[in-house]
Amino acid sequence: MSNQAKKNTGYPYPMLNPPPFRWQAEPDLPEPKVHEWIRTLEPSAAHDTDWSRIDAAILGVPLSRSSISASAASETPEEFRRAWRSFTPYNLEEDIDLTPLSVVDLGDVRQHVTDISRCHQSIREAAATMQRHHPSTLPILIGGDHSITAMSIMGIKDTRPEKSIGLLQLDTHFDLRSLEEFGPANGTPVRNLIESGSLRGSDVWNIGLHGFFNARSLRDYADRAGVNWITMKEARRIGLETAVHSALTQLEKKVDTIYLTVDMDVLDLACAPGTPAGAPGGMRTEELFEAVRIAGTHPRVRGMDIVCLDPRRDINQITIKTGVHVLLSFLTGFMQRDKA
Amino acid sequence: MSNQAKKNTGYPYPMLNPPPFRWQAEPDLPEPKVHEWIRTLEPSAAHDTDWSRIDAAILGVPLSRSSISASAASETPEEFRRAWRSFTPYNLEEDIDLTPLSVVDLGDVRQHVTDISRCHQSIREAAATMQRHHPSTLPILIGGDHSITAMSIMGIKDTRPEKSIGLLQLDTHFDLRSLEEFGPANGTPVRNLIESGSLRGSDVWNIGLHGFFNARSLRDYADRAGVNWITMKEARRIGLETAVHSALTQLEKKVDTIYLTVDMDVLDLACAPGTPAGAPGGMRTEELFEAVRIAGTHPRVRGMDIVCLDPRRDINQITIKTGVHVLLSFLTGFMQRDKA
Amino acid sequence: MSNQAKKNTGYPYPMLNPPPFRWQAEPDLPEPKVHEWIRTLEPSAAHDTDWSRIDAAILGVPLSRSSISASAASETPEEFRRAWRSFTPYNLEEDIDLTPLSVVDLGDVRQHVTDISRCHQSIREAAATMQRHHPSTLPILIGGDHSITAMSIMGIKDTRPEKSIGLLQLDTHFDLRSLEEFGPANGTPVRNLIESGSLRGSDVWNIGLHGFFNARSLRDYADRAGVNWITMKEARRIGLETAVHSALTQLEKKVDTIYLTVDMDVLDLACAPGTPAGAPGGMRTEELFEAVRIAGTHPRVRGMDIVCLDPRRDINQITIKTGVHVLLSFLTGFMQRDKA
Amino acid sequence: MSNQAKKNTGYPYPMLNPPPFRWQAEPDLPEPKVHEWIRTLEPSAAHDTDWSRIDAAILGVPLSRSSISASAASETPEEFRRAWRSFTPYNLEEDIDLTPLSVVDLGDVRQHVTDISRCHQSIREAAATMQRHHPSTLPILIGGDHSITAMSIMGIKDTRPEKSIGLLQLDTHFDLRSLEEFGPANGTPVRNLIESGSLRGSDVWNIGLHGFFNARSLRDYADRAGVNWITMKEARRIGLETAVHSALTQLEKKVDTIYLTVDMDVLDLACAPGTPAGAPGGMRTEELFEAVRIAGTHPRVRGMDIVCLDPRRDINQITIKTGVHVLLSFLTGFMQRDKA
Amino acid sequence: MSNQAKKNTGYPYPMLNPPPFRWQAEPDLPEPKVHEWIRTLEPSAAHDTDWSRIDAAILGVPLSRSSISASAASETPEEFRRAWRSFTPYNLEEDIDLTPLSVVDLGDVRQHVTDISRCHQSIREAAATMQRHHPSTLPILIGGDHSITAMSIMGIKDTRPEKSIGLLQLDTHFDLRSLEEFGPANGTPVRNLIESGSLRGSDVWNIGLHGFFNARSLRDYADRAGVNWITMKEARRIGLETAVHSALTQLEKKVDTIYLTVDMDVLDLACAPGTPAGAPGGMRTEELFEAVRIAGTHPRVRGMDIVCLDPRRDINQITIKTGVHVLLSFLTGFMQRDKA
Amino acid sequence: MSNQAKKNTGYPYPMLNPPPFRWQAEPDLPEPKVHEWIRTLEPSAAHDTDWSRIDAAILGVPLSRSSISASAASETPEEFRRAWRSFTPYNLEEDIDLTPLSVVDLGDVRQHVTDISRCHQSIREAAATMQRHHPSTLPILIGGDHSITAMSIMGIKDTRPEKSIGLLQLDTHFDLRSLEEFGPANGTPVRNLIESGSLRGSDVWNIGLHGFFNARSLRDYADRAGVNWITMKEARRIGLETAVHSALTQLEKKVDTIYLTVDMDVLDLACAPGTPAGAPGGMRTEELFEAVRIAGTHPRVRGMDIVCLDPRRDINQITIKTGVHVLLSFLTGFMQRDKA
Repeated sequence: MSNQAKKNTGYPYPMLNPPPFRWQAEPDLPEPKVHEWIRTLEPSAAHDTDWSRIDAAILGVPLSRSSISASAASETPEEFRRAWRSFTPYNLEEDIDLTPLSVVDLGDVRQHVTDISRCHQSIREAAATMQRHHPSTLPILIGGDHSITAMSIMGIKDTRPEKSIGLLQLDTHFDLRSLEEFGPANGTPVRNLIESGSLRGSDVWNIGLHGFFNARSLRDYADRAGVNWITMKEARRIGLETAVHSALTQLEKKVDTIYLTVDMDVLDLACAPGTPAGAPGGMRTEELFEAVRIAGTHPRVRGMDIVCLDPRRDINQITIKTGVHVLLSFLTGFMQRDKA
Repeated sequence: MSNQAKKNTGYPYPMLNPPPFRWQAEPDLPEPKVHEWIRTLEPSAAHDTDWSRIDAAILGVPLSRSSISASAASETPEEFRRAWRSFTPYNLEEDIDLTPLSVVDLGDVRQHVTDISRCHQSIREAAATMQRHHPSTLPILIGGDHSITAMSIMGIKDTRPEKSIGLLQLDTHFDLRSLEEFGPANGTPVRNLIESGSLRGSDVWNIGLHGFFNARSLRDYADRAGVNWITMKEARRIGLETAVHSALTQLEKKVDTIYLTVDMDVLDLACAPGTPAGAPGGMRTEELFEAVRIAGTHPRVRGMDIVCLDPRRDINQITIKTGVHVLLSFLTGFMQRDKA
Repeated sequence: MSNQAKKNTGYPYPMLNPPPFRWQAEPDLPEPKVHEWIRTLEPSAAHDTDWSRIDAAILGVPLSRSSISASAASETPEEFRRAWRSFTPYNLEEDIDLTPLSVVDLGDVRQHVTDISRCHQSIREAAATMQRHHPSTLPILIGGDHSITAMSIMGIKDTRPEKSIGLLQLDTHFDLRSLEEFGPANGTPVRNLIESGSLRGSDVWNIGLHGFFNARSLRDYADRAGVNWITMKEARRIGLETAVHSALTQLEKKVDTIYLTVDMDVLDLACAPGTPAGAPGGMRTEELFEAVRIAGTHPRVRGMDIVCLDPRRDINQITIKTGVHVLLSFLTGFMQRDKA
Repeated sequence: MSNQAKKNTGYPYPMLNPPPFRWQAEPDLPEPKVHEWIRTLEPSAAHDTDWSRIDAAILGVPLSRSSISASAASETPEEFRRAWRSFTPYNLEEDIDLTPLSVVDLGDVRQHVTDISRCHQSIREAAATMQRHHPSTLPILIGGDHSITAMSIMGIKDTRPEKSIGLLQLDTHFDLRSLEEFGPANGTPVRNLIESGSLRGSDVWNIGLHGFFNARSLRDYADRAGVNWITMKEARRIGLETAVHSALTQLEKKVDTIYLTVDMDVLDLACAPGTPAGAPGGMRTEELFEAVRIAGTHPRVRGMDIVCLDPRRDINQITIKTGVHVLLSFLTGFMQRDKA
Repeated sequence: MSNQAKKNTGYPYPMLNPPPFRWQAEPDLPEPKVHEWIRTLEPSAAHDTDWSRIDAAILGVPLSRSSISASAASETPEEFRRAWRSFTPYNLEEDIDLTPLSVVDLGDVRQHVTDISRCHQSIREAAATMQRHHPSTLPILIGGDHSITAMSIMGIKDTRPEKSIGLLQLDTHFDLRSLEEFGPANGTPVRNLIESGSLRGSDVWNIGLHGFFNARSLRDYADRAGVNWITMKEARRIGLETAVHSALTQLEKKVDTIYLTVDMDVLDLACAPGTPAGAPGGMRTEELFEAVRIAGTHPRVRGMDIVCLDPRRDINQITIKTGVHVLLSFLTGFMQRDKA
Repeated sequence: MSNQAKKNTGYPYPMLNPPPFRWQAEPDLPEPKVHEWIRTLEPSAAHDTDWSRIDAAILGVPLSRSSISASAASETPEEFRRAWRSFTPYNLEEDIDLTPLSVVDLGDVRQHVTDISRCHQSIREAAATMQRHHPSTLPILIGGDHSITAMSIMGIKDTRPEKSIGLLQLDTHFDLRSLEEFGPANGTPVRNLIESGSLRGSDVWNIGLHGFFNARSLRDYADRAGVNWITMKEARRIGLETAVHSALTQLEKKVDTIYLTVDMDVLDLACAPGTPAGAPGGMRTEELFEAVRIAGTHPRVRGMDIVCLDPRRDINQITIKTGVHVLLSFLTGFMQRDKA
């Protein structure tokens, strides 16, 4: 479908490319795999779509030019789609079948090769369009580097400026580095959000910080801005689940919408070798799955992203499979939320 | 020795090849390494062997054509033998010296290149022969893919049809997929055993299931068949050791013989990158070692195998060394059993 | 589409799965990439297809259980389709634009997990169906291991038993090993074809043999059977192009149809690390491309396959990209043939 | 030294960072290795430098955000410096000792994380400064991706707009893709130079094009623009050395300055696995070394760069060592030029 | 600077090479990275150095010829220096800023290619010189293989023979193998120290032993010599922190100086793939960091080393980054000690 | 067999270990693979061995501690033995069947962990013993690093001091570095031989030198010492076969015995990634095979070695398979010599 045609059919996403490929599947399989369950949104079918029945929409954001260190995180959306085949949409431990959920794959935000601000603008517009055209559908962004989180939240805010947004961040880093020095890079999204007034520092909860990976000045900035943070060591002391519950409980008192961002480098480097800034001493895989599932259960969590996963550094798909598992763990919580 | 000659000397294993290589060792070393302690059974010496003094016999099963996804698990028996060099037969933490055990390496089951049912038949015959010729020697099969477990247990059952067998399975998967669709593949051995009447579903205990790797219908099948299962999350909640003890206690009430099967993909993918269907969120290495050791202590555990380890996907021998450690942990338990 | 439905629409390929994924592309791109130019044959569109206008049909054959050594060549069809994106259908050196050719991707032959003879039967039927339903369309099989060549040629022969077939084989090996010992494996296809009477030994030309990779008895068998062979060293002495031309000239005098089979291990191991039996001292990449292009120009070459490429052993996609280039080089010759 | 201080001492390169590390070496070694021979230019010593005695200046350009596919070519300058240790500055085959040459390492152009046009502007200014402050010193840029070539030549042109520049390009690609679509990316530098009037299409000679890696429209554009090009096949037919000599002879009649650009993907993928767009069928290593050496001998070659080498894709430093060898081969020609 | 010159300026380290490279940094950065904070000791500045103000001195020991299995641990000092860039000298979890510490990098002990005893002698002299010239500066050796620990402690002992030294060893192995058989290799340092009278067996505490990696005779030797050891399993039972505290408490009663040696293979192989004798079932990363930090807090710990890290076996820098983190965790404890 | 026993049976090799493993083979196979054809010499059978019927004896030399850069070349003998399985002893291109040759595997020279001179002494004694006890058996040493060549030739010289020895060296390096600086390392063997009077510089022919990998002073030393050398470029100009023939023709006039040494780094790095000092621009695989085969045909070539192959740096066994092919190519020439 040409861009012209897309506009004519009322397709709201001129800034999107469809997913690079669609899986071939028998329709109405009684027991689909994940790639058979998540459906591609065909532009031609867009205006026939009853969005009120779509629970979640996945948006690929193939941008990693804005990463401080060289990254191929732009290849993650495609690798996610390929890896869906290795998963069933049934969580045995929680006895949750995801197939009643209606999840669509919107494809990827079109990105420019040399104009990063244009890339960011398209992401922001895509996020805004999602809010505007189908506000009840939960947006899930698959990055890309962490700079996209600022664009995603700004897009939401553009659509509903009167609503306050809080951030639950699982990360090794504050992401509060200087905008003057770096611009909207993967080291600055939280600062970008605070300084642009998109959210308040005190509405940010960062869990998982550890080690020698944040300058002291960033911690000072965080404290001045009122950012709430719980180190990995502290989270283990009080229980990671408690830490997540506590953050959600605090946030629900203060904001309308909670956005969850998962930087894959929150994981221990041995558990997630495919990250551009991975570090030893981080979260373990099963801890992250549980943290994300809990976040998924909270009714006010209305957006999430998974970022900074570099498939070219990955080994034996460890990190890609872990990333997809994070997505499905979140949706498991989302299902559990629905039941409640 | 020609096949003809083998038959004449009363060597009971026409379906075996000797191990591809034998280590060169000084005899009667005071402190052997594992490759100097485990002895190759020479076909020419077979009828002089006093089997009542052989505690355990290792059988390589180089078959992975029956794996659903491409696998080089057929190369594992050879890689095990090479890796023996990196281990001493002394467990420091348990203060258990394995050298009083007499363990022989029987070599590998001869496998056909294009006739998988002939491969399976040979495995079944080898297992039956082990039971028949030296029933007091504990058989240990080194796979190969998980399809071999069905053949191993059927071979035991062929020899002693009146005895009931129970299965303790450490696995991420039920292995209950449809025989109609897959045949005797690595996704179907437990179903194969149940449907062939080799054991009852209620005599299966599977510990370690987790995540999004089993379709809901398989869980339903498991429940209908009475298969007992404990997820990773549940096992951690009650303690993995407790879970294993509990399974053994239940089984000993119901069956004559307990067979232990260890699918290496029960481990977290970061702990065992060399598995064809590895998944994040699994068991940790030291947890598996302890589970297997405990199983080894139980007097009714009279057979075991280690399967679905693909050395071509392995990294820095992490998975191969872990597999050998599983073998030695089991034998540590076996020694502790003898002492009791 | 269900299998039932397929039968009802007259779709001739009940033994095929559609390609696992289809690329998303803007229709009627002025300058497509290869993945945008090769079209997927939709089963639903099959009986509307005017096959007389289809020049070539690609068939994936995801079988490598029949490989002597462990191989993931079954993953090659999918990796080919992914790698198409990295190529344009325009050969700059020959100034040949492939886009006037109509090439369809039929998908993959459905393969059974544990019954290799059923796998082989399906390949044979698929090849026969191609000959029967659209004899003017050139079949191109993407393996899989070399056993598929025997099935492909037998399928052709089944359809037109009165026609004689010759084989141009680019290979490091004779592939004449004993059928009694191996069955229809990747070491026996040429013997299988000779002994089944599908073709005569004297209608086989093998170019590229070298080194220490064929037992003397195989050479003796080849000579007794009248197989024509030119070693790498001899081919370089007379010129590889001359060798190929010479083989084609000889074959065209004797057979109706020439079938080209390219075993990727004919290449030097450094040029094609992703092969299960790769060897040093083989053909260089540009030599293979030219040999295949020349074969493509010959009007009697009416079938071809590319086999024994194992993507799991590949490094940086060297071998996959080379395999796709072989396919496109052949089609370049095919275009040049049309012009002549 | 602060940026302020740099300006005060007359250091002309406010846009440069010093090399990230300097090798520690005993001064005045009789037989230095390459890292001991190439000297770091200390900013503090800049205004004492007698540039008329500096033969060549190396400039790192750590930019690969402008690469179409994800690339870590930004890490190449540092990897080059590390790899210098593995080379002596003596070419045995040519009996050329490079140590009489005075070569300095200027460090790296400072690059912005998210503003690519600012990155490009800094490269252009650095190139211009080199021309302005020490026009007799030959500039050598170590990329980075191929977009830097446009900036480098524009910088030269900025300084001496009246001089005509010709381009000798060793490449698999035309690099003539649409500026409208890509901007100043690694697929567009030659088009950028032509369309900006920096050089004429007829003053470009591209040697090494091959295979299916350039759309037909790019070839048409090349022909319309008068770009001269010799495919790999043609170059081998006439002799690669002849091809290079021919290009130089043509260029010297038409331009004042010849600029040599080496895209490492001109090499066969097996010879240079560490390139973002590597392809099978390319130039062999020794062919490239000789081509570059010949270019180095021509007195009108007054600038060169090496681009599109991605160390993260490299294997065993094959590509990095080859890149450094290209640099030294060029300098060997440069020495031979001096002698003539 | 020539060796002659070094002697004339009173530089006490004729056996040292300066670090192979020095990072280029702006002086007096408000927030340095680790490579900007640790300063290189320039030989020319050595006699102006006020050593009383230097808290710790890092010495690279690029020796791994004395490793039983092939090892490139000799490359670790350089890889450490490169990896410093990825760390800030601020520990967020402990809120400890390391920058008040003055830490110098002395460079590497000069090593001979074929005379291992001369290598060892140089290490011993370097360690002795450190004690003699700046006894209040804590020495930190970056190996190299474990044989260097014997030399380091002997050097300390040479300088202060009247002082008793105790060893806190974090290791999978006893390192008590036979000196007669191996000489001063990486399997013998503790035995070397005991048998040379440098320390008493009862002043050794080894924490982290596990699995099947120590012959029974070594355990017997350990017990006869009075070596104290706590297996991984026992350490986890009582708490690893408790184990470390207990060892330190015992040692402080008996010795003047405690030396900490960290063999990286104490870590689980999946957490530290880059070790020559890595084993499954070991310590986890965060456990090691905490153990080392606690050791750092003890005022009598006056020397430490990190050994048996082989960067050539490493994957994605997991082990190198972990090694640097061990160094910084120790210095965090050292800072906390100062505060107390 | 104990060392004591070995002495009693007249086994002449107290300094040898048997090969670490022996392949299991059916005896008297009509068509053996290489591992079934090369026989292990059992110490117990040594005094029954009729050495006059043994054509060649293979000796593993697992030493790489004496390598300038870290190397695991010590693991090559074992990797060779494993890789023998992938080869038949029949050279198709030359129609040479090697099985009439009687070749034994003597095992490995016992090496000390920390005393390199003792290692070297054992190699020298092993080589001397071979000459003394079975002078008509051609010794083939599998290194190990290049230092072993000096020991091998010295051992021959020790036994027959009156005989002159010449060296045909295929290498990227002169190996003439300073003995004072390096001792008997892998950079000095030729100098060691010249300075010890074991051979004359003018009796050395080095073919394959290239690039920037030899300091000018080494070339000057070579010329002063009369070493004959032909660069890669020159060898290609005159034909590599001509170069080898020429060297042999010159040497046969001057020496009694010619020794062939193959440093695997003579190959282009892309053809032999598994070498510690590999370089781009070297020999191609098929060129080396032919050079070595020609050397094998010369009746005065009475010893050879293959060195500096590091299996840990190898990729997909490219270099190991190439090394084994070199061995078999040499034996092919040896067979052709016998026929002449």
